[in-house]
Amino acid sequence: MEKLELLYEGKAKRIYKTNEKDVLLVSYKDSATAFNGEKKEEITGKGRLNNEISTLIFEKLSENGIENHFVKRLSSTEQLVKKVSIIPLEVVVRNVVAGSLSKRIGINEGTEIKEALVEFYYKDDSLGDPLITEDHIALLEAATKEEVETLKTIARQVNEVLKGHFAACDVRLIDFKLEFGRTEDGNVILADEVSPDTCRLWDINTNEKFDKDVFRRDIGSLTDAYEVILTRLGGQSTCTK
Amino acid sequence: MEKLELLYEGKAKRIYKTNEKDVLLVSYKDSATAFNGEKKEEITGKGRLNNEISTLIFEKLSENGIENHFVKRLSSTEQLVKKVSIIPLEVVVRNVVAGSLSKRIGINEGTEIKEALVEFYYKDDSLGDPLITEDHIALLEAATKEEVETLKTIARQVNEVLKGHFAACDVRLIDFKLEFGRTEDGNVILADEVSPDTCRLWDINTNEKFDKDVFRRDIGSLTDAYEVILTRLGGQSTCTK
Repeated sequence: MEKLELLYEGKAKRIYKTNEKDVLLVSYKDSATAFNGEKKEEITGKGRLNNEISTLIFEKLSENGIENHFVKRLSSTEQLVKKVSIIPLEVVVRNVVAGSLSKRIGINEGTEIKEALVEFYYKDDSLGDPLITEDHIALLEAATKEEVETLKTIARQVNEVLKGHFAACDVRLIDFKLEFGRTEDGNVILADEVSPDTCRLWDINTNEKFDKDVFRRDIGSLTDAYEVILTRLGGQSTCTK
Repeated sequence: MEKLELLYEGKAKRIYKTNEKDVLLVSYKDSATAFNGEKKEEITGKGRLNNEISTLIFEKLSENGIENHFVKRLSSTEQLVKKVSIIPLEVVVRNVVAGSLSKRIGINEGTEIKEALVEFYYKDDSLGDPLITEDHIALLEAATKEEVETLKTIARQVNEVLKGHFAACDVRLIDFKLEFGRTEDGNVILADEVSPDTCRLWDINTNEKFDKDVFRRDIGSLTDAYEVILTRLGGQSTCTK
């Protein structure tokens, strides 16, 4: 597999063409960003951690029958994925109130949500990725009504698999953000990444945070936190402490 | 009917007890506010205009079988209403993209919406009345799922009646905000006010604005604009120009 030209550079990843038409190469960067890019830092080792964790999670989802864009891990910071056309929606699943939801509705962070809820945010940096309703999605023609139902169904399936898997590793899955893409034959599959950049992950006993809130809120070392997640998921830590 | 003690003073209205247990007296104030109270002005005549317009609209809705809290007009600035317990949701119906929706999703103001959409905002000044989803309503226990369906149904019925009624008066009903209350026997009925403070109303030919955007955006005289609406609805104008 050859790494060809850079197609796209995002805040946390670079996407390259390969010599296979339907396969792209994702290279995870050592950049941490938050608040729509307002806070930014280079953190050595972050790219590797997210690539390794995302690999383990995509493999676990595939084992459980949840189709996704992951093809294979290439190196410590790179993976191959199926080419899809990304649907401009962030699909957020919440098991516990935290972050922007707590601020929006005034319910304390940490409050359990009986039945996991699914939210949609419109992927548009210039608008600040706003919360939108299903009617707004229709108006924006961001996805069809049928696709929205598919997104909700897959998002809930991912939640069931990951909640159980993380719990077995002594981690509480608080919430997470998914992105989806359309394949050439029109299927909707899970894409992007699933990592501590895109999930809130708390220790099951102490509620210690092992996710990007460590960076957002300046409450410790991001790589130490992500190493905990990688190790608990059974990955190879390079932590030498 | 006796006007007894003040129960509540809001941005645009005062609510008084009366000597009838289930009836309250609403007195419309001459205050205009916008942006969650950040912009504020006293505008002589505004209270009368909103009382007269709201009276005409509630009467029109009653004629069309839409139950609401209006009992009767008492004076130029006062009306009697049924006592209800207000549901803490603002129910917004939109026929045309304008205001906060345009800013949220980046679609130009004035864009027609094929099928009217209904949004919910959580009535909480300290949170800035945020947009919320039906899942958030459940989490907040602001209304039951059944009530939410009722709110949507009535909101769409109100839209059908008012869209036609305003069109017959050469006014385009762009969007509007409703509030609902629970009666003592648990019925959900339309409450609050329906006026140019709570609707966007544009001239059907020129798109001239006859609503609170005139005040929000400093584009003319609020009372002149509201007089146009009162007159077109067949109300008694006191305009001496």
